[in-house]
Amino acid sequence: MSKLRVAVLGAKGRIGSEAVRAVEGAEDLELVAALGRGDTLETLVEAGAEVAVELTEPASVMDNLEFCVRHGIHGVVGTTGWTDERLARLRGWLDASPRTGVLIAPNFSIGAVLTMRFARQAARFFESVEVIELHHPNKVDAPSGTAARTAQLIAEARREAGRAAQPDATTTALDGARGADVDGVPVHSVRLRGLLAHQEVLLGGEGETLTIRHDSTHHSSFMPGILLGVRRVVTTPGLTFGLEHFLDLD
Amino acid sequence: MSKLRVAVLGAKGRIGSEAVRAVEGAEDLELVAALGRGDTLETLVEAGAEVAVELTEPASVMDNLEFCVRHGIHGVVGTTGWTDERLARLRGWLDASPRTGVLIAPNFSIGAVLTMRFARQAARFFESVEVIELHHPNKVDAPSGTAARTAQLIAEARREAGRAAQPDATTTALDGARGADVDGVPVHSVRLRGLLAHQEVLLGGEGETLTIRHDSTHHSSFMPGILLGVRRVVTTPGLTFGLEHFLDLD
Amino acid sequence: MSKLRVAVLGAKGRIGSEAVRAVEGAEDLELVAALGRGDTLETLVEAGAEVAVELTEPASVMDNLEFCVRHGIHGVVGTTGWTDERLARLRGWLDASPRTGVLIAPNFSIGAVLTMRFARQAARFFESVEVIELHHPNKVDAPSGTAARTAQLIAEARREAGRAAQPDATTTALDGARGADVDGVPVHSVRLRGLLAHQEVLLGGEGETLTIRHDSTHHSSFMPGILLGVRRVVTTPGLTFGLEHFLDLD
Amino acid sequence: MSKLRVAVLGAKGRIGSEAVRAVEGAEDLELVAALGRGDTLETLVEAGAEVAVELTEPASVMDNLEFCVRHGIHGVVGTTGWTDERLARLRGWLDASPRTGVLIAPNFSIGAVLTMRFARQAARFFESVEVIELHHPNKVDAPSGTAARTAQLIAEARREAGRAAQPDATTTALDGARGADVDGVPVHSVRLRGLLAHQEVLLGGEGETLTIRHDSTHHSSFMPGILLGVRRVVTTPGLTFGLEHFLDLD
Repeated sequence: MSKLRVAVLGAKGRIGSEAVRAVEGAEDLELVAALGRGDTLETLVEAGAEVAVELTEPASVMDNLEFCVRHGIHGVVGTTGWTDERLARLRGWLDASPRTGVLIAPNFSIGAVLTMRFARQAARFFESVEVIELHHPNKVDAPSGTAARTAQLIAEARREAGRAAQPDATTTALDGARGADVDGVPVHSVRLRGLLAHQEVLLGGEGETLTIRHDSTHHSSFMPGILLGVRRVVTTPGLTFGLEHFLDLD
Repeated sequence: MSKLRVAVLGAKGRIGSEAVRAVEGAEDLELVAALGRGDTLETLVEAGAEVAVELTEPASVMDNLEFCVRHGIHGVVGTTGWTDERLARLRGWLDASPRTGVLIAPNFSIGAVLTMRFARQAARFFESVEVIELHHPNKVDAPSGTAARTAQLIAEARREAGRAAQPDATTTALDGARGADVDGVPVHSVRLRGLLAHQEVLLGGEGETLTIRHDSTHHSSFMPGILLGVRRVVTTPGLTFGLEHFLDLD
Repeated sequence: MSKLRVAVLGAKGRIGSEAVRAVEGAEDLELVAALGRGDTLETLVEAGAEVAVELTEPASVMDNLEFCVRHGIHGVVGTTGWTDERLARLRGWLDASPRTGVLIAPNFSIGAVLTMRFARQAARFFESVEVIELHHPNKVDAPSGTAARTAQLIAEARREAGRAAQPDATTTALDGARGADVDGVPVHSVRLRGLLAHQEVLLGGEGETLTIRHDSTHHSSFMPGILLGVRRVVTTPGLTFGLEHFLDLD
Repeated sequence: MSKLRVAVLGAKGRIGSEAVRAVEGAEDLELVAALGRGDTLETLVEAGAEVAVELTEPASVMDNLEFCVRHGIHGVVGTTGWTDERLARLRGWLDASPRTGVLIAPNFSIGAVLTMRFARQAARFFESVEVIELHHPNKVDAPSGTAARTAQLIAEARREAGRAAQPDATTTALDGARGADVDGVPVHSVRLRGLLAHQEVLLGGEGETLTIRHDSTHHSSFMPGILLGVRRVVTTPGLTFGLEHFLDLD
């Protein structure tokens, strides 16, 4: 069987260089191009790339994807900064190239994606849900984007199930003790030297609790998700938003 | 709206008496009979029971269900000891009463059911999976039935996905250190005063781990599952095995 | 060997009735009196009580202890509401009865006492420390008194060791995300159905974290501490404040 | 204040090179020599080293320490392979150089040292104790040396306190389910991709559990312990075995 021909854009970056190694290490994939800043996109065509892994930055991702889609090269995209307007332009290019597929994933960690999905599914069965996220102390925002998104998914699931507000008899509290309120779900942010990126969803009902915890200890955790995206995007024309659609859950 | 008329069989037992209280406490349900050892099943008909919650013992469950199904009373069954032969007899009775439904659930804890489901779904995405179950020290078997079942579901999912054996470089080990081998999945049993029933599924891949933990601290945790079963069984004719089929997880 | 003669004051209360059972179940102790509201203290003398376990309420504890100390009956006290003025009066009575001992313990759970001690000892070795306490949702205050006290002990230990403020690069945060600030130590309060009383101290340094977690699942957890207090107070004249002084931790 | 003059032996190794950076980064220390294989020990004298951090291997550690002690250079030693005979020889050299100090530490992680100490201190207060250690799947031995040592310390503390055997009603068990028996303490070894080195000590009594967990995520976690050793060894003549003696835990 011939190998799938893969290019990496943003190949000099921290995640990009890891992706280069991951593609090289996969038996069914062949790395045919590794582009850094200043390299020409024509290389992708000359190298016969079938899939481009896009790990650059918001300023260059649109040009890169326009070129790829126009040349029938599938895309697996980790670059952020997506707006409705950008997505609409991308969809336009894909309409004109109906056999090409693009996967955009805000998070390539399969563990993080599963955590969000399981939290959403479990949410309506429990009276109480809270989220604790724990990161290294150099992080500038609190809560993390993933934790805020998880809390919103939980809140949505509770609303759809007609769940009442969470029980909480607190009458006397120090400021901040009960966490941030994200759509009715308390979210607590811990910043601790020695940690990288961790998240815990606690669900509680009468006589039982369910805890879903994701620990990310190295950005190599993104590689299985990127490789899975590469293998699946070639048979999934159009735009796919979110790695969960490639996980064949349910 | 008229309330659903519910009977409890085995109403004097530990779980049964809890179920009596739970039915009484539910606004949409009415407790119409609570039978203990020696009480006659005719009471169910006289009381106009629509659903019977069966929490007796293997020696009586078959007679109880035959009576219920024959009289069109739906069943929600927590009693254990099911064999293929017993299930076949029950199916025969249900064939003769095509509008009656029976739910048999080995575990009514929604948290335990979700833990098994999530573990099975996540299993194929991770190189390594182990199960730790922790119980009070009066438990006579190790590992717990739930942990063994969880490990089997994980092993099945890995086989279906073509996953290789788990990585393990151990060459020197004390007897028992690496746990029990259940179908290729290591299972560890902790027995500790102060605990009731707990289970942790650890999944690990490059750079990340996912942990799903269920803590059961009181047998009241079975009540939400029993009530959910009562409400759903009346519109689900035939035999349903496992609470998960009533959880509407897509 | 003759048994130690023990009385329980407040014997009808939730903790008191548990204490009655615990004393009755201990081979080296004999329950000689169990007083409820309205019972006369003279009973203690008539029964020949050597130790009184005081589990009543702030309104009665002073009269009870005055009587006990005057009659040379040692005290083990779980009742709260201690002020400097009250302690001074108690010390006065003890000065006049130099062979009598009284132990006052804000917390009889040995696990909780050890958690505080270990947290205090470990605090100065780590750059970061945060406290998470988790309780049932009927609790009215946040954080718990134990968590606030733990955070203060940690803060004190850090100050004594000349530790700088904790690293925290947060610039954008939702209100409350980073918890309550107790003397420079972030404290997070989770309120979840299915929980009772739990506390986790997280300490982090370069490349490692240390976590000390206490789970209290039943108020029977106070009994070993009460019995230990009873056995030790008879040979410890004067006032002892805090169970930790009886744990012989070197 | 003049800086303490420090040399690193084994400076090219994984831990040694980290130690070089750590010494260079410390304001009160000055790196005066970094020796690799083949470099001459005379350099230490020429450089005016006051403390030598010994991170080589069992084959060279004795010659290195003999030289250091003879020249009045204090030692901080991470190299393993210590026997009674070797320790006796080292003590002989130190007797002849009464102002020189040597610290040998089997583990420089302060978190690991505290975990062992806290586990030992808490052990006698709880009916049940078990140890779970979790490592990457390339580890060849199970349980880890640290876990086995922790279990022995726990067993010793229980024996000294006259504690009975742990409660365990298990009558039916799969082989290995209850872990390895280390001196009466069950030890469970998990091997999971995505982990580095982790240990959890679970202690349980009536109504409560205490958990002490150490997570080591990078070997940089040894550096604070090494630096603390360097600073303290200069005022601690003779042989000190174990970092705990420098932690000033009362």
